Amino acid sequence: MGQAVSASPAGVAPRDRIQQLQARAARLREHSLRATSESASGHPTSCLSAADVVAALFFDVMRYDPRDPGNPACDRFVLSKGHAAPLLYAAWAEAGAFPVERLLTLRRIDSELEGHPTPHFAGTVAATGSLGQGLSVGLGAAWSAKRLERSDQRIYVLCGDGEMAEGSVWEAIALAAHAKLDNLVAIVDVNAIGQSQRTMYGHDVVGYAARFSSFGWHAIPIDGHDMEAIVAAFDEAAGVRDKPVVILARTKKGQGVASLADKDNWHGKAVKKGPDLDAAIAEVRAAAPQVALRPVEPRGAARPAAAPRAAAMAAPAYKPDELVATREAYGTALAKLGSVNPAVVVIDADTKNSTFAERFLAAHPERYLEAYIAEQNMVGAAVGLSTAGKIPFVSSFACFLTRAFDHIRMAAISRANLKLGGSHCGVSIGEDGPSQMGLEDLAMMRAIPHATVLYPSDAVATERLVEAMGAARGIHYIRLTRPKSPILYGVNESFPIGGSKIVRQSAQDKLTIVAAGVTLWEALAAHDLLAKDGIAVRVIDLYSVKPIDADGLRAAARAIGGRVLTVEDHYAEGGLGDAVLNALAGESASVTKIAVNDIPRSGKPEELLALFGLDAASIAKRVREIL
Amino acid sequence: MGQAVSASPAGVAPRDRIQQLQARAARLREHSLRATSESASGHPTSCLSAADVVAALFFDVMRYDPRDPGNPACDRFVLSKGHAAPLLYAAWAEAGAFPVERLLTLRRIDSELEGHPTPHFAGTVAATGSLGQGLSVGLGAAWSAKRLERSDQRIYVLCGDGEMAEGSVWEAIALAAHAKLDNLVAIVDVNAIGQSQRTMYGHDVVGYAARFSSFGWHAIPIDGHDMEAIVAAFDEAAGVRDKPVVILARTKKGQGVASLADKDNWHGKAVKKGPDLDAAIAEVRAAAPQVALRPVEPRGAARPAAAPRAAAMAAPAYKPDELVATREAYGTALAKLGSVNPAVVVIDADTKNSTFAERFLAAHPERYLEAYIAEQNMVGAAVGLSTAGKIPFVSSFACFLTRAFDHIRMAAISRANLKLGGSHCGVSIGEDGPSQMGLEDLAMMRAIPHATVLYPSDAVATERLVEAMGAARGIHYIRLTRPKSPILYGVNESFPIGGSKIVRQSAQDKLTIVAAGVTLWEALAAHDLLAKDGIAVRVIDLYSVKPIDADGLRAAARAIGGRVLTVEDHYAEGGLGDAVLNALAGESASVTKIAVNDIPRSGKPEELLALFGLDAASIAKRVREIL
Repeated sequence: MGQAVSASPAGVAPRDRIQQLQARAARLREHSLRATSESASGHPTSCLSAADVVAALFFDVMRYDPRDPGNPACDRFVLSKGHAAPLLYAAWAEAGAFPVERLLTLRRIDSELEGHPTPHFAGTVAATGSLGQGLSVGLGAAWSAKRLERSDQRIYVLCGDGEMAEGSVWEAIALAAHAKLDNLVAIVDVNAIGQSQRTMYGHDVVGYAARFSSFGWHAIPIDGHDMEAIVAAFDEAAGVRDKPVVILARTKKGQGVASLADKDNWHGKAVKKGPDLDAAIAEVRAAAPQVALRPVEPRGAARPAAAPRAAAMAAPAYKPDELVATREAYGTALAKLGSVNPAVVVIDADTKNSTFAERFLAAHPERYLEAYIAEQNMVGAAVGLSTAGKIPFVSSFACFLTRAFDHIRMAAISRANLKLGGSHCGVSIGEDGPSQMGLEDLAMMRAIPHATVLYPSDAVATERLVEAMGAARGIHYIRLTRPKSPILYGVNESFPIGGSKIVRQSAQDKLTIVAAGVTLWEALAAHDLLAKDGIAVRVIDLYSVKPIDADGLRAAARAIGGRVLTVEDHYAEGGLGDAVLNALAGESASVTKIAVNDIPRSGKPEELLALFGLDAASIAKRVREIL
Repeated sequence: MGQAVSASPAGVAPRDRIQQLQARAARLREHSLRATSESASGHPTSCLSAADVVAALFFDVMRYDPRDPGNPACDRFVLSKGHAAPLLYAAWAEAGAFPVERLLTLRRIDSELEGHPTPHFAGTVAATGSLGQGLSVGLGAAWSAKRLERSDQRIYVLCGDGEMAEGSVWEAIALAAHAKLDNLVAIVDVNAIGQSQRTMYGHDVVGYAARFSSFGWHAIPIDGHDMEAIVAAFDEAAGVRDKPVVILARTKKGQGVASLADKDNWHGKAVKKGPDLDAAIAEVRAAAPQVALRPVEPRGAARPAAAPRAAAMAAPAYKPDELVATREAYGTALAKLGSVNPAVVVIDADTKNSTFAERFLAAHPERYLEAYIAEQNMVGAAVGLSTAGKIPFVSSFACFLTRAFDHIRMAAISRANLKLGGSHCGVSIGEDGPSQMGLEDLAMMRAIPHATVLYPSDAVATERLVEAMGAARGIHYIRLTRPKSPILYGVNESFPIGGSKIVRQSAQDKLTIVAAGVTLWEALAAHDLLAKDGIAVRVIDLYSVKPIDADGLRAAARAIGGRVLTVEDHYAEGGLGDAVLNALAGESASVTKIAVNDIPRSGKPEELLALFGLDAASIAKRVREIL
C-alpha cells in the first residue's frame, strides 16, 4: 500500500531540486490566482491544492517539449479535475509554451484558455469538466503506448477526490490494473472539499489507498504539499512494474493563502482583484524559496511520422441470395477494415458475440481491448486511443450506449475520432424485452454536434459505411439490427455519407415511404401489397440519418405531391422521422410518422412490429388511410 | 472480511432445514429449465448458478406474503441480474404466488413473465436487464426503510459478477456504506462467466470480498452451492450492525446439469426441448433430497395505509419587480412542497448550492439524501425510493443528468415516479464553457416514453410546475436556467401540464415566436425592437415541451399565416423546435428554427447568446428576413 503519510519518503532529493520545484509551485499559484481574479470567475482554490504536484510533474518528472504541447508521443498530462484549468494553463505558460501574460485572457470569448480545458488549447489531451472521465482517457492512451507503440511514454492523470465518487473512475481503475498498465500514474488531489460540502472520505488518504490496492494498484499516500514526499513518490512510481500507480496526495484546498486554505464555501470563487488579490500573492511569494529558476529543457520524443495511408478495402463479398444481419456484417467489416488500416482498434463491453466484434478479435487480437461490462470507461478509453492517433470502434447494444451519453458528449467537445456501433436496435430484437431494445439511440446520437448517424439496411451497405467511418474523422454512429435480412444492393454500390437510395419508384407514385433497417424491409413488402391494389408508392432507404439527403427528400416529396410516410423502429422523438421533418420544413409536404409509441414488451419480433404498426400490413393500411 | 471460503460456516442449521431448501432449489432449477426450453430462449444457466441462494432467500430468510408479491412493506428481493428472470418467476410461483404451469408462458407477448423483469409481473421491484442498476434501487429502498419508515424491513439484491464491472455498482457500494445501511444485503453470484467470455476476476470471491471491505461493507465469501454455508451467511448477515452486508457466492453457471455446469458458450441459450431437457431435469431431480415440502407461511408486514392526501401549496410569494433565477425558484419550491407533502424526498449530486436543492435540505434535513458526484446511483436510488412510495426529486446540472440516461430509460420501463431537475441549461451559463452546458437534455428527456418535459421562464411558473410534478405520477423533467430573470406572471397564474402561454399578441401579428427560458426573454425584447419598426409578432411561452399544446400552436400558426420561429438554448436536434415541428406537422405552416448549431465555448452569456443568434437583436433580424 506504499508508505504511510507520516513516514519520511525514500531517497530524499537534493535541496536545490526541491527548491526549484517549490519556486515553480509558487509561480503556478500566483498565475492561477491572477487569472481567475482577472476573469472574476473560476476555481482558484482547486488550483492551489494541486500546484505542488503539478509543479513536480512539469518541472521534474515529465518528458515533453514545451514548444509542442500537443505532441502525442511525449509523456502526457490529463487534467481530469478540469475545473483546475488555470493551473494547467499556468504550467504550460511557465514551461515556456506561451507568454504568461496571456493567462489573463482566461475565460474570454476570444481566448483558447476556456473555463474548462478544450482542444482550443494545444496542451489539452481531452476536454474535461464533466468529472470522472480523465482516468479512462489516460487508460486508453497508456494501453496504446504499452501494447501498440511499445514506447516508454508515460501517462499522468490528475484526479480530484470529489470525482472518485463517479463509478466510471472505478471502471477505469479495474481495467487499468487488469491490463497491467505500469505506464499509467494517477494522482488524486485529496483536498477533502467538494462543490457543496466536504467529500465522503475527507482527508483519509490511507483509506483511498486501501481501495485502490484492493483493485490491484500500487498506492502511495503522501502529504501533497511536501515537495520531498512528492518527488520521492514519483521516483517510486517510476520503478513499479506491471501495476498502475496512484499517488494519494493529502492537500488543502486553497493551500498557500491562509484566508482560503481548507475553508468551506470557496469552491468556484475568485479572489477579488485589488487589495485581496495583492495580499494573497504577497503571501504566496513570501513563502517561496528565492532561487533563480532553471529553464525547461525539451526532452520529449519526436512527433510520430504521419500514419501511412490505409489501403482500400476489397468490395463486399456477399451473394444476392444470402441472409445476413447488419450486426454480423459489421463484425465482418471491422475485421476487413483492420486488415487494411493498422490504426483501427476495437473495444467491446462483453457483447462481442452479439455485435460480432469478435470477428475483429479473431483477426487482430493485439488491437482488441475487452472493456468488460463498463460502457462509460469503454468510451472514455476510446477517446484516449483517439488522442494517440488510433481509430477506435466501440460496440455494444445500442441501448447500453446510452450509459455513456455524457462521455460521448464530452468526446464531441474533445473533437475525438470516435466510432460507435450499436446493435439490437428496436423492438425487432423480440423476446428479450424493452430493457435490451435501443429505442432512443438515434435521438441521442443526432443531438451530438457534428456526429454522423448511419443506419444500414443490408450487409453491403453496412460494410461500405464501416469503411467510410474509418476513412472520415470525427464521431460516427452506426445503428445495427439483430434479425437477419436479405442482400438489397450489388456489391459495387456506393453509399456516400449524406446520401439516400430510392429503392422503389414509378411515374405513378402517390406517396413516399422513408425507412431504414427492419422497417425498410417492411416498407418494401408494403410496396408489393399496395401494388396488388394498383397503389404505387416510392420507397427511400435513409441509410444516412445525419447528415441527411435533404435535396433528395425534397425532390421525392415534390414528385409525389408532398405525401411522405416515415417508418422507424425507434421512439417517435428525435429519430428518423424527426430528421425527415426537419429536412422538409418549409416544403409544402405532409409528413406522417409511424414509430414506437409506447414502452414495448417481450414477444416475437413479428408480433412486436405488428403491435406498433411497423409491419408491412400496418404500413399498407396507413398508406391507404392517407391516400 | 468474513470467513474464508474453505472454513466451515458458523452455526450449522438442522438437517431438515437444509434439505427443505435443497429440495426447493431443485424445483427452481427444474422450473427455470422448463420455461426457457418452452420459449426456446432465455438464460437458464444464469438461473441455475443462483438457484441455491434464491431458494434460501424465498424459503428461509425473507419475510413476505406470497399472496401479495407487490407489498412494499415486506422484505424485498431485487434481481439485479435481470437475465435470471425465470428464476425470479419460479421462486414466486413455487412460493404460491401463481400456478407453476404459468411459468411456461415465459416471454410470450400475452404473458406478464417477460424476458427480463418488468412491472407487468407483481413481484418485480424495479425493471432490470440493463446491468449494474439493482443495487442502487436496493439502496434507495433500504434508505427509505431505515431513515424514513424506521421499519425492520430488509432489502436483498442479487447481483451478477459480470455486472460488478459497471461503475454504478461501486457508486452504490460507496454510498450504502457511508449511509450505514445494515438493512441492505447484496449477494453476488460469482459464476465467473459473462456473456462473451470469463469475467475479469473469475472465481476469486476473496478478492471481491477485499474490494467490498475496503469500501466499508461486511463481506462473507462462501461456496454458493453449499446450503449450510448459505444459511449460515444469511444468519451472520442478520447480526451485522451499521454496515451493509455482501455475500460473495462462488457458484457454477449451469450448476446441477453436468453438460452445462461451468461450460463456456452457454450464456443466453436454452436447453432443447425433448430428450435433452428430460435428461437435464432427471439429473436435477436425482440430486434433490426426497422430502415433503412445507408450504410457505405468510409472515410479511401488512401493506402500509395509503399516504394522506398532500395539502395544497400556498401561492408563490414573488413580487413583480424581483429578479430570480428559475433554478433558485426550484429550490424554494422544493422546500415548500416538502412542507405540504411528507412523501417528497430530495437527492442531489454535490451541486445543491447551484441547483438550490440546499433549500430543501435546510427545511427538511431528514428527507434529503446527498448522492455525492454519482449521477447514475442517484437516479437508481430515486427509483428505489419510488418503489417505497416516496416522491424523489433528483437534481444536478442538466448536462450531468446525461450520465444517467440508461438509468432514466430503465426508470421509464419500471414506471417509476421520478422527478428530475436539470439546472445550468444552455450557453447562457457563460464562462464555465461547453462541458457544463446542458444542450441535449431536451432531446434525451423527450425520448423517454410518457415523460413530461417542462421549461419554465420565471419563478412563478417554476413553483407552479414543481407543485404539479409532485402531484402527478410518472417521470417529470424540469429544465432550469442559471441567470436571474424578471417575474413574468402574476402569482395566481396557473400552468397546466400540456399548456402554453401567449405572452404577446395583437391583431396585426405577422409571425409567432415560440420560446422558453432565456430565449423567451430575448424574444420579448425582440418583440419590442420590432414594434419600434411597426412589425407586430406574437410570442408564445412553451413552458410544457412534452406534452405540447398542439392545439394552441396550430391556432396561433393559423392566426398569423403560418409563419413560426422557434428559438431555443439547446442543440437543433430533439429540442423545443422539433417539438413544435411535430405539433405543426400537416399544417400549412412554415417553421424556422434558431438553436445552438455548433459546439459552444467560454464567454459572457450575452456574447454567447449573440454568437448563436439567440439574442434579441439576432431574433429581430431573423424575423425581418422571414417577413
